[in-house]
Amino acid sequence: MFLVLFGNGVVANVVLPQTKGNDGGWIVIAAGWGIAVFIGAFCANEFSGAHLNPAVTLAMYLADEGFSLVDSGGYIGAQMLGGMAGALLVYVFYREHFRQASDDPDGMLACFSTAPNIRNLPQAFVCEMIGTFALILPIFLLVDPGFSAGAEPAENAPMLGLGSIGLLPVGLLVFGIGLSLGGPTGYAINPARDLGPRLIHALLPINGKQGSDWQYAWVPVLGPLTGAALAVLVNSFL
Amino acid sequence: MFLVLFGNGVVANVVLPQTKGNDGGWIVIAAGWGIAVFIGAFCANEFSGAHLNPAVTLAMYLADEGFSLVDSGGYIGAQMLGGMAGALLVYVFYREHFRQASDDPDGMLACFSTAPNIRNLPQAFVCEMIGTFALILPIFLLVDPGFSAGAEPAENAPMLGLGSIGLLPVGLLVFGIGLSLGGPTGYAINPARDLGPRLIHALLPINGKQGSDWQYAWVPVLGPLTGAALAVLVNSFL
Amino acid sequence: MFLVLFGNGVVANVVLPQTKGNDGGWIVIAAGWGIAVFIGAFCANEFSGAHLNPAVTLAMYLADEGFSLVDSGGYIGAQMLGGMAGALLVYVFYREHFRQASDDPDGMLACFSTAPNIRNLPQAFVCEMIGTFALILPIFLLVDPGFSAGAEPAENAPMLGLGSIGLLPVGLLVFGIGLSLGGPTGYAINPARDLGPRLIHALLPINGKQGSDWQYAWVPVLGPLTGAALAVLVNSFL
Amino acid sequence: MFLVLFGNGVVANVVLPQTKGNDGGWIVIAAGWGIAVFIGAFCANEFSGAHLNPAVTLAMYLADEGFSLVDSGGYIGAQMLGGMAGALLVYVFYREHFRQASDDPDGMLACFSTAPNIRNLPQAFVCEMIGTFALILPIFLLVDPGFSAGAEPAENAPMLGLGSIGLLPVGLLVFGIGLSLGGPTGYAINPARDLGPRLIHALLPINGKQGSDWQYAWVPVLGPLTGAALAVLVNSFL
Repeated sequence: MFLVLFGNGVVANVVLPQTKGNDGGWIVIAAGWGIAVFIGAFCANEFSGAHLNPAVTLAMYLADEGFSLVDSGGYIGAQMLGGMAGALLVYVFYREHFRQASDDPDGMLACFSTAPNIRNLPQAFVCEMIGTFALILPIFLLVDPGFSAGAEPAENAPMLGLGSIGLLPVGLLVFGIGLSLGGPTGYAINPARDLGPRLIHALLPINGKQGSDWQYAWVPVLGPLTGAALAVLVNSFL
Repeated sequence: MFLVLFGNGVVANVVLPQTKGNDGGWIVIAAGWGIAVFIGAFCANEFSGAHLNPAVTLAMYLADEGFSLVDSGGYIGAQMLGGMAGALLVYVFYREHFRQASDDPDGMLACFSTAPNIRNLPQAFVCEMIGTFALILPIFLLVDPGFSAGAEPAENAPMLGLGSIGLLPVGLLVFGIGLSLGGPTGYAINPARDLGPRLIHALLPINGKQGSDWQYAWVPVLGPLTGAALAVLVNSFL
Repeated sequence: MFLVLFGNGVVANVVLPQTKGNDGGWIVIAAGWGIAVFIGAFCANEFSGAHLNPAVTLAMYLADEGFSLVDSGGYIGAQMLGGMAGALLVYVFYREHFRQASDDPDGMLACFSTAPNIRNLPQAFVCEMIGTFALILPIFLLVDPGFSAGAEPAENAPMLGLGSIGLLPVGLLVFGIGLSLGGPTGYAINPARDLGPRLIHALLPINGKQGSDWQYAWVPVLGPLTGAALAVLVNSFL
Repeated sequence: MFLVLFGNGVVANVVLPQTKGNDGGWIVIAAGWGIAVFIGAFCANEFSGAHLNPAVTLAMYLADEGFSLVDSGGYIGAQMLGGMAGALLVYVFYREHFRQASDDPDGMLACFSTAPNIRNLPQAFVCEMIGTFALILPIFLLVDPGFSAGAEPAENAPMLGLGSIGLLPVGLLVFGIGLSLGGPTGYAINPARDLGPRLIHALLPINGKQGSDWQYAWVPVLGPLTGAALAVLVNSFL
């Protein structure tokens, strides 16, 4: 929830009209998402080991048989609910500014879900796959070699074993993905971050909104999951 | 005092005419406030456990009966005096630039207190409430589980138990709140940061100033306090 | 590979048309490269002690006889291959945007290799030499005095002995070099980062590309190596 | 030397024509100076306890009688020489761009020394005094209470006792001073950083340069020293 509140919040601040951060530039977006992941991660650290992303959860499941399918499913469900709650909060928070944006349906959708700047879906899939690969493999390499997800995830030690400061590299990593790999698709790199808010966009009666671009919705789901599987594969070679 | 000197200082640098940082963009404002909180927090760390914000103090009081009403009142009084001293210093520091801004009373007031971009007071209250909730709950989750404010706050261990580097996540959190949730109201999220400087604005004989917008003044006081109470409630469930 | 994927990725995001980060400013470039080095360094930390740069490897070789010529050659070969792989990934990632850039061959080349803004090759050599000197000497001063590369690099303790957070100063250092010393030549400060991608630029059939500027290619190779040797010399005096 | 190379380097990158960072904005300047101090501090940490600033040295001398007048004088002399060497390096580095700037003598001087945007010298003195006070007092509060400069500075433990990461708050502090208090005078807050490069500006035969503004030169010397003394006074009360 905090991940999407902060993440989509920064998009709203930059994209919607009459905000104080309007037209703040790409550095604002990328820094905001980096911090969103850092905040979400340290808040979730003692509860779930900072699992905020179905792609991360899939990677942990594939990498470690002790992390059960049921647990993974529960995590992913919670991530979807969190993403939806965060998206709802962003709408409540920026409600007055959504009202002023009724002539910009693309901008309003961008406050919920990602969209590619150049519409080539297979290429967008490649971008989401590579972007998520560049998230998951470094996370594996950050984590202590002795890391094991264990049988009961909720009782694990925090994922990176270093307390809140130890999660800073993950925030910086996402800041870097935004700066460097956010150009073509807006870097969902997280199915729950994209699909959850897209559902909220579809459900909310926003004045002036158009479709929720369901034709694109599979890309930021399957791209990240494929990238995660690829990262597990490469990591097992390493 | 340092919180407001650095925080309102960055607003003055961006908003007032003929400064070197004039028109520096939202990234400058949000980074400046994030660092302002970091500096204020590590300076106050050994004296008060980094209490700079009546909303934080209220949350600690509500969460822990060992933190007495008298102590809380003393903290909040000191926070108000610090906010007023910081605001006075900003005025002294940027005096020549205030002189050049006499045709921009809103810009001058922004160097003291917050104001919403779209004037809907109940909505602004919601924004300040959510923004402060998104400050206090993560702070609770950052603090060691064994944390207790104890009976004598001035003798506590530092709030986050990690020395000055351990306060960095708090600064990053405020940087993130600025980036993501600063769009509608300019994120007071701290009654002393808004009301203290507003009093100074009312008292100072600034050339060209207009009213201190007292109709709005309750929002950045009651919004943050409500958000803090809400965070305590959610934290007690967690 | 990650170094160049993130590093050249941020250039592509800012320089190529129709990206979300287009025209994002120098802060985006410098922050992106700083994080690129941080990510590359912590990923390579347990394998090679974070050697990503032939200039760093040369410096370590010159500073410590236990670090053999054969090992150094192996490292440098791997760095070249990584730089080429990263450059290929950037092209794959930003393929649609390269298509839109066919009227800007200089911009496309900038997504692979560096070029000076004012074409004076001896001066550019001086800039690359000083820039790399300002990278290597601080790295020597960061590393624990007791550091020794030892005879078998792959089994070394991580270069800075502080885990991933301990590599943050190196990322900040490169961020600073970009901000402060990136103005004239675009700061290659790493032969593999420049020559590897330049080879890929020469090989790839990119629509609208022009020459790979081989007349300049020696500068970002010999400048950094000279600067590294100079840093070893100064460090041995210190 | 590194402090001024990075610090004045970032000014040159933003101010001089035809650089890659030209017109990069205040965030670039403030971030560049913050990192300049961080780099300078960790490089000097094991030699002098990160003394880079006569105002800091004066404060340490006033605060602790074990830090002798002779040592302080030696430190300050070394700081001046370092500032001059750094300024010379910036000129060598950006030589081609200085050539293009011959019609902007103020911009060229800004690559060496500070100047106020609104010329009121007593007010500029107040700004430099407050800015340096806001540097020194937080540094005192950062340092462990048990800190003592001791009789032989060169053998001291590093100033902040936390290795290179422990100096990060000082870099962030200077980043914050730039963002928030850099508006009126460009924040010298360090006599050696201003006077040393000003001497080099006076001595170098730069095409198109005008005077070195010696009428202003006392402000960034006496302002910081006064602010440092004030910080010692307040710290002794605390």
